[in-house]
Amino acid sequence: MPGLPNATEAFVTLVTNPEYGLGAAVLGYKLRAVGTTRATVVMVTETVPETTRAMLAKTWDKVLDVTQLDSKDSDRLAMLKRPELGITFSKLNVWKLNQYKKVVFVDADTMPLSNIDDLFQYEELSACRDAGWPDCFNTGLFVLAPSPDTYKAIMKRACEEGSFDGGDQGLLNAHFNTWSHGDISKHIPFSYNVNPNASYTYLPAYKHFADQVKMVHFLGAVKPWHYQYANGKVQGQNLTEHTRKFLEDWHKVAEMVKQSYYQPTSAAPYVPPISTGSTKPAAPSSHVVPDDVSSVLSHITAQIKNKEKAKSSMY
Amino acid sequence: MPGLPNATEAFVTLVTNPEYGLGAAVLGYKLRAVGTTRATVVMVTETVPETTRAMLAKTWDKVLDVTQLDSKDSDRLAMLKRPELGITFSKLNVWKLNQYKKVVFVDADTMPLSNIDDLFQYEELSACRDAGWPDCFNTGLFVLAPSPDTYKAIMKRACEEGSFDGGDQGLLNAHFNTWSHGDISKHIPFSYNVNPNASYTYLPAYKHFADQVKMVHFLGAVKPWHYQYANGKVQGQNLTEHTRKFLEDWHKVAEMVKQSYYQPTSAAPYVPPISTGSTKPAAPSSHVVPDDVSSVLSHITAQIKNKEKAKSSMY
Repeated sequence: MPGLPNATEAFVTLVTNPEYGLGAAVLGYKLRAVGTTRATVVMVTETVPETTRAMLAKTWDKVLDVTQLDSKDSDRLAMLKRPELGITFSKLNVWKLNQYKKVVFVDADTMPLSNIDDLFQYEELSACRDAGWPDCFNTGLFVLAPSPDTYKAIMKRACEEGSFDGGDQGLLNAHFNTWSHGDISKHIPFSYNVNPNASYTYLPAYKHFADQVKMVHFLGAVKPWHYQYANGKVQGQNLTEHTRKFLEDWHKVAEMVKQSYYQPTSAAPYVPPISTGSTKPAAPSSHVVPDDVSSVLSHITAQIKNKEKAKSSMY
Repeated sequence: MPGLPNATEAFVTLVTNPEYGLGAAVLGYKLRAVGTTRATVVMVTETVPETTRAMLAKTWDKVLDVTQLDSKDSDRLAMLKRPELGITFSKLNVWKLNQYKKVVFVDADTMPLSNIDDLFQYEELSACRDAGWPDCFNTGLFVLAPSPDTYKAIMKRACEEGSFDGGDQGLLNAHFNTWSHGDISKHIPFSYNVNPNASYTYLPAYKHFADQVKMVHFLGAVKPWHYQYANGKVQGQNLTEHTRKFLEDWHKVAEMVKQSYYQPTSAAPYVPPISTGSTKPAAPSSHVVPDDVSSVLSHITAQIKNKEKAKSSMY
């Protein structure tokens, strides 16, 4: 990818199994489709099979192996006392990516609806309010500045205190504990991390602010890949109109991504925006963000044929 | 009440029917039980029967009649185009209470668990984040500075734009529309307006912060008065431990309040804190907030016998 080796800012996600791998593939595809100019990096744990990694390599600039912890690491012993935090520890690896000055971490069960590159104007630690306990931030999306020192400090806290919710959200809220009533410039608008499943809690607001939603986050136990999808329709009851639309958008892309993986094509009628590593928006060949996802996919597939394998290891 | 006529700060609620009347009676009782030093004022609409008003007069310093709108008011015509906003317009009357410099408005379906007088340090418009759409504030509790000009400005907006949620929350969020990302000192901690019914959305946080909860807000269609209560227990399935405890606390007080109304007693072994109108805490005869609710109730009943009828009209 032109300019990618010099990228200073990146979108990063984490994949720990094939299901989240499909989620991340959709996310990576959508980040390209909405014209991000930043590098895109997917961290994968040793539990992710090669087939998933290969699929991810088609929609992300880099696929990075992360081990839960290095075997020589003194923190390993402490972690072993808290095996439930294994996934959380994997996510913390994002602070080690100090080849980037700034990172926007996004969970693999999210989907941007429009360009969200303006998130890179925020400083560490910026995030959106959580719709369950709104004085916490939701760690489905957050802005950070990678630093080995910060990594160690958070690891230390995790080993000493654990996490009140057993995951990264409790841990990171405990670590960045002035966020709630500190600097409001670190409060990203909620429209960047909207959980459509929760719309019943305040439906009029979800309708009123619908046009402002920049990214949806499929929080909760039921993920997009759990829904049956056929003939462009998601099978599911008790779905709000918005949730159904978001799920169908997700599945439309998922179908493309899967099709591309099994039946790659070199046809490339459309050139989408490419990560350049600069902060300037890339100039797409068209001035509109493509709705024609198959064109974008074709281009990505063609690109991949010509680029070196982006997968590398952090260690 | 000693000092009450000179009070500059007040807790205010609104009652529009007998059910909310019982809610407000519990709220007024609890405000006294947790030792508020501020005046307490309940606004009642013309739809509230005399029996309810009499009950409210036992736990609130003042029962104020508010009409939906004065018949000579030019706004009346505009309001008639939006009959659904009638209740909302009634709530707005709180901005007319400019005998007070500052007011903490609390919905009648709330219940303080400990003293919340520190809310009077906040400026207009301060409120807690809404747990449904957390960039909105929840109008179950908010701090305001009464002003006829502000009243008119909000009324004007209501008549011109309506409310995106058909109620006061949509209207007030539209009016105080810089709240979300403006002055963070106007963000009251969520622990002052916690909806226990929503705990399933992020249960670990509700458990982790349980000790910090200052006030609960029984949001949603099912209110405390809808639950069956017998032998100190609330009948209901799928209630979290915390929700059940809050509901039982509420019913315990509701029983006292109802009993007092039908069987008043003049026994007064305990003198609870009384509204003095000053910002200094009143000196109770005991230094602890009473758990013995029947003692508090007896005192209140005795007080009422000696005080002039506090009910008056705003108009």
